[in-house]
Amino acid sequence: MNRPDIRRLPKRGDPQEAQKKLLEAVQSKVLTSESAALADAVGRILAKDIYANINIPAYDKTFIDGYAINPQTTAEASPTKPVIFKIIGKLFPSDYPTNVQVALGETVYVATGSAIPKGAFSTVKVEETRLNGDQIEIVRPIKPGEGIIPIGDDVKEGSLLLGRRHVLRPQDIGLLASIGLAEAEVFKKPVVAILSGGDELIKQSQKNPAKFPNNYALVVAGLAEELGAEAELKGIMPDSLELVEGRISEALEGSDIVVTIGGSSVGVKDFVPDAVSRLGQPGVVVQGINLRPGAVSGFGIVKGKPVVMLPGHIGSCIAGFYLFVAPLISQFSGLQEEGMQPTLPAELSEAIDSGPQFRFLLLSLKRAESRLLASPVEGGSSALTTIVRANGYAVIPPHTNLSKGAAIDVQLFCKLETAQMS
Amino acid sequence: MNRPDIRRLPKRGDPQEAQKKLLEAVQSKVLTSESAALADAVGRILAKDIYANINIPAYDKTFIDGYAINPQTTAEASPTKPVIFKIIGKLFPSDYPTNVQVALGETVYVATGSAIPKGAFSTVKVEETRLNGDQIEIVRPIKPGEGIIPIGDDVKEGSLLLGRRHVLRPQDIGLLASIGLAEAEVFKKPVVAILSGGDELIKQSQKNPAKFPNNYALVVAGLAEELGAEAELKGIMPDSLELVEGRISEALEGSDIVVTIGGSSVGVKDFVPDAVSRLGQPGVVVQGINLRPGAVSGFGIVKGKPVVMLPGHIGSCIAGFYLFVAPLISQFSGLQEEGMQPTLPAELSEAIDSGPQFRFLLLSLKRAESRLLASPVEGGSSALTTIVRANGYAVIPPHTNLSKGAAIDVQLFCKLETAQMS
Repeated sequence: MNRPDIRRLPKRGDPQEAQKKLLEAVQSKVLTSESAALADAVGRILAKDIYANINIPAYDKTFIDGYAINPQTTAEASPTKPVIFKIIGKLFPSDYPTNVQVALGETVYVATGSAIPKGAFSTVKVEETRLNGDQIEIVRPIKPGEGIIPIGDDVKEGSLLLGRRHVLRPQDIGLLASIGLAEAEVFKKPVVAILSGGDELIKQSQKNPAKFPNNYALVVAGLAEELGAEAELKGIMPDSLELVEGRISEALEGSDIVVTIGGSSVGVKDFVPDAVSRLGQPGVVVQGINLRPGAVSGFGIVKGKPVVMLPGHIGSCIAGFYLFVAPLISQFSGLQEEGMQPTLPAELSEAIDSGPQFRFLLLSLKRAESRLLASPVEGGSSALTTIVRANGYAVIPPHTNLSKGAAIDVQLFCKLETAQMS
Repeated sequence: MNRPDIRRLPKRGDPQEAQKKLLEAVQSKVLTSESAALADAVGRILAKDIYANINIPAYDKTFIDGYAINPQTTAEASPTKPVIFKIIGKLFPSDYPTNVQVALGETVYVATGSAIPKGAFSTVKVEETRLNGDQIEIVRPIKPGEGIIPIGDDVKEGSLLLGRRHVLRPQDIGLLASIGLAEAEVFKKPVVAILSGGDELIKQSQKNPAKFPNNYALVVAGLAEELGAEAELKGIMPDSLELVEGRISEALEGSDIVVTIGGSSVGVKDFVPDAVSRLGQPGVVVQGINLRPGAVSGFGIVKGKPVVMLPGHIGSCIAGFYLFVAPLISQFSGLQEEGMQPTLPAELSEAIDSGPQFRFLLLSLKRAESRLLASPVEGGSSALTTIVRANGYAVIPPHTNLSKGAAIDVQLFCKLETAQMS
């Protein structure tokens, strides 16, 4: 009987170099945008700068319920020497625009948000006045501008409200609505097509103890969506070079990024790298990186699109995902650098030695007094429970010793981790 | 002309007491759950404990591509004194269950994930062996268990996998799939109905400088959804007590929480508190709190459901939202305490004096070296741009001085803020 045909991995390069090579290879991709209704635009990324087309407020208005006056006669006002104003009307916000005018010694009741009548320069709270028939008494000096928000105070016409590449939060949506927008131009979400390798996989929920459910694809899809992508589960690749090639080719249609899980190493049934290289130039660009876990990760470029080859062990798969897929999603989403992935400064709970390779160190975060404490999460790289116990990770360079209490930036897997940190 | 009818607010209570009163008033609410497909369950909250119904792995398996052997004859193995094993077969994961058996001196090639044949207790990497026809040479002592993940190592049958009230992240979804689940039982999202007060409001995108677009409702809806609720925009309440009463009554149907924005104070057109009290016992429970901004917030209970009355100024509205609406959403979502809202420890960038009231202090967060720096955000309480410049807040008790550099826990408005902190 013959020994199975075992190939060797090429020399494993620096993970940061490999990531840089990937992002450079796809940097010419033209990002497209689409229009999204404001109510659906939370979490989307602005595709262009938004300038204010109006002033907010649009006119000088009162921010209190009170009386609008010309304050110049109040300089000597006191409880014993009150200054009298005659009430000549009422204004509500819906009365704008108004021609009401007050003379010296006259006043108008103004409900919060109302325009200031001509001749008035201040408003005084109802509670601060004394009512006497159709007159009020002012019992202290009032400064010009008191009680009033001047035109453009909140938003100045022509000013930059929100910049391109800004992630829209609920309050940003409110701000866009306040200048009369009903939609926002946002970047299209990149489409990530996910293929799982190896016929030991079964489709999800076909229970069979001998096989794995296709659960890692669900994890990768969920993470990709949390980072701003649209994920498409493309099923399981059969164990044949031609069929794998065909499935990757299909997945490339209509997607921006193809991700394969498993079959990327040098085993007997690891068809993915060969399939990628057969699909077009340059094919596989990086196969194998100096990262533990995650060493068997790599990527190719086919028809200008990235094909990321993730290892089949979940720990390695996640490491490769954050090294290659997460930055691709950021770049293709219109974001820069870390994108939607939170990075939090923390303190290491125990000493760490990275060893001879770059280390993808899983960490769990807890709030402790006035800081976050990051504890290394131990466990096999094939155990999903290890990832479940972690909130994020840090990539530590080779031969690095970090002492207990050292500062460390933790990259959370996704925003949802912040709900699991207490 | 008569002075408008001005009522006084009741004595303003402690905001934390008011919040406690609200949560106690609704604590008897029975939470309901529903089944969600795993792929749609990211971010949802488990409604029951999940125990493992299987072992993972389901059998002793190899985590390397290699050779399965009984290692007891390798104690003296070395490059100069190799121990020989005869290859009698190959196993792949899909071959499970297998009857293949190895005797002493025999071996089977096992691809990663394959079951260990009977009689073997270790696996040795292909790269560590020397091939010689149908034999391999082992050149070092092999320990029992090397290269093998024992049954149940990742997940032990009968163990608690994820607890009730756990927020499902992508890796949790993968774990549920790994035990063969296709769906998860999650809490139903609470429905928050939002009504905006005052006829100075116009529907969103009806541009008119004299009126406000109904944008604060969009902000409240977006925040409610980010915190795990389903938000329903119920439009604008007309300026009449009867009509406001009718609209609140309608909003109560089919929702779990009603939120009104504006009209909650003591002005001429502040119909909301009276409307709430007319709708049923006990009606308004709290009107006015000792919080700046946010003093005009309050709530009532109608037919056992909470009606939260938020002020019309956006700064006050947000303060009231986090005091009353956010904890309601957490409680009704099946979460406890802070729920989906991230809390991060930070350092104050400058000294703060809360003044005589509880202070709702807006903060912007930046990463600075190995910590987060929280800077107070100044600006009018009616300016949405002030909220746009902030990432979160802290509630500071009255008469509290915090020095520059003091530790402060910042509550982010929502998870999306973590993407705006770099």
